[in-house]
Amino acid sequence: MDDKRFEQQIRFILEIDKLKTILRRTYLLNADRSENTAEHSWHLAMMAILLAEHANEPVDVARVVKMVLVHDIVEIDAGDTYFYDKAAALDKSKREHAAADRIFGILPLDQAKELRELWEEFEHGQSADARFALALDRFMPQLHNYHTNGRSWAEHGITADQVLDRNAGMAEGSEKLWEFARALLDDAVAKGFLPAGKEK
Amino acid sequence: MDDKRFEQQIRFILEIDKLKTILRRTYLLNADRSENTAEHSWHLAMMAILLAEHANEPVDVARVVKMVLVHDIVEIDAGDTYFYDKAAALDKSKREHAAADRIFGILPLDQAKELRELWEEFEHGQSADARFALALDRFMPQLHNYHTNGRSWAEHGITADQVLDRNAGMAEGSEKLWEFARALLDDAVAKGFLPAGKEK
Repeated sequence: MDDKRFEQQIRFILEIDKLKTILRRTYLLNADRSENTAEHSWHLAMMAILLAEHANEPVDVARVVKMVLVHDIVEIDAGDTYFYDKAAALDKSKREHAAADRIFGILPLDQAKELRELWEEFEHGQSADARFALALDRFMPQLHNYHTNGRSWAEHGITADQVLDRNAGMAEGSEKLWEFARALLDDAVAKGFLPAGKEK
Repeated sequence: MDDKRFEQQIRFILEIDKLKTILRRTYLLNADRSENTAEHSWHLAMMAILLAEHANEPVDVARVVKMVLVHDIVEIDAGDTYFYDKAAALDKSKREHAAADRIFGILPLDQAKELRELWEEFEHGQSADARFALALDRFMPQLHNYHTNGRSWAEHGITADQVLDRNAGMAEGSEKLWEFARALLDDAVAKGFLPAGKEK
């Protein structure tokens, strides 16, 4: 029995417990607190299972599930970079790559390589699986924002123009989700959850 | 485009956000709060991916991942039944079956059937995949308890005899995990995290 290997696996499993303490900007639908990244990852995995039929291209559901389970583990070191924060976006990649080195590096080499490659594939969106995973990751906050009366949008002064601009890539993974997200956004503007654009 | 189907899927996805508010008896390793069931499910899925090689029998990792992602969704209605609570165990099955009817029933019929069957398979432990998933579900709280100095064991007056008795089934899914869990438990007793047994 290779106990070094097992010990590395357990150490990684203990390490990623920290993802439960990384807070996102979105709010829960049924409780007055921010969502954390571990529960977000679970929710995305459930969406991958249930919505795979709406991907533009055929996807390998099991790979998409694994990808979304892993996609934010780097936030343990790098923190959650707010999607609309242009300043933080500048060094996001550098911070996250250092995090990937350290965290995936805890695992046995073959598993470190597998998870890291999945994460990189997600980041670059260069496969049908990654494009669909990215679409889910963009869709979910819109759903949460709409169903919390735009709470997080309002807190950060986000406009519908910004949401459209930053999320248009969703269509590359799923036209269906993007169409639905745009309809929600129109309704959110009509309901006064967020302004259409910046005042001139 | 079948919008009734899509609407059912979205309604289920919104409904299961509630799993993030269901609290378990275990504590996080790096924060002073209880773990919730959504983040627990994510953590189990990561374990399934990383520890599948330690299952007694060959398992279909993608199925085990899906199973653990889904395995506690019934707690949205039925609550988390404490593993050592014999009184609550009496009507656990009845409460959880009613929950399964309502919650999985939100989904389109084919998806409701698939997720419900996966949950039933897990509950009954009658496949290699389910036995391994159950082993992970038993292993995780022991790992958390050990690394929080037995906090949850102490709060509920649990003894090592009880832990051994209730968790022995872990060996049916993974001898390796059970062997490791027993070693942790011996060490926990040696360190005074919990007593070996009830005083006579």
